Amino acid sequence: MADDVLFEFLHMEMVSHIYKDQASKGEMDKDRATCVSTLEGMGFRVGQGLIERFTKDSPSFKDDLDVMKFICKDFWINVFRKQIDNLRTNHQGTYVLQDNKFALLTQFSNGKQYLEEAPKYLAYSCGLVRGALSNLGMDCVVTAEVSLMPSCKFQVVIQKI
Amino acid sequence: MADDVLFEFLHMEMVSHIYKDQASKGEMDKDRATCVSTLEGMGFRVGQGLIERFTKDSPSFKDDLDVMKFICKDFWINVFRKQIDNLRTNHQGTYVLQDNKFALLTQFSNGKQYLEEAPKYLAYSCGLVRGALSNLGMDCVVTAEVSLMPSCKFQVVIQKI
Repeated sequence: MADDVLFEFLHMEMVSHIYKDQASKGEMDKDRATCVSTLEGMGFRVGQGLIERFTKDSPSFKDDLDVMKFICKDFWINVFRKQIDNLRTNHQGTYVLQDNKFALLTQFSNGKQYLEEAPKYLAYSCGLVRGALSNLGMDCVVTAEVSLMPSCKFQVVIQKI
Repeated sequence: MADDVLFEFLHMEMVSHIYKDQASKGEMDKDRATCVSTLEGMGFRVGQGLIERFTKDSPSFKDDLDVMKFICKDFWINVFRKQIDNLRTNHQGTYVLQDNKFALLTQFSNGKQYLEEAPKYLAYSCGLVRGALSNLGMDCVVTAEVSLMPSCKFQVVIQKI
């Protein structure tokens, strides 16, 4: 419990710092993209580190779906305190992970007034997932979408080489 | 365990982001001070938030020493997974908290080669303590000192009004 808060508070501070820092430099539109990519990059490196710890004692994975199941269950529980509620795939390299109560969005009220702000608070987590998958040999693009707080969908698209 | 890592990794990324960001702006000396103060400020706000949660069910404190004991025990365990090893005071508003194995320094090797880097990794924690104390009505200056990794001394000086 204390730990959740420790991470959540630090995450909020970091988002707000990065956005404030960019705002002070002017150029609003370019800024938004830069902030998202800065946060995503931080998440990516942390995700790489985390997955190394989490998979230390795990057997190897038999396929991509097996990896995704690990992300939805073990990884998500370790990081966000709950499992992903729903995993869907088109069996062609696209996965949709739905979390009905995403930890980093629970501080916001359920209404629509904060929907526009949501992407700021998802960039770091998209990076976490991309970093974790990258270390498991899966090169992906990860995006997130919120239609009703605090539920959230992460889309993972595996990049064919 | 997973949570420790989550917080520690995010903290490392944040320190490195803030230093890199400043370095790109030039002016090295002014920069160091700015980075320390940015990190300290983030810690301060998080410390304020954390202490509110941690003291929700606590009885009120009878004096400053009582508050400091709470910081050394409950607060430190919640945040850094262990108690402060030694608390000293001159009974005139100065307290020295010694942690023989400070969580955010354990990733570094014990030698002297990283001593110079240590202050970067302590600024956020100094802010945490200052924020927590501030919310408990104690206006303080908090500094940290490392003479041998990973042990660390935090000095708290209460400001008389």
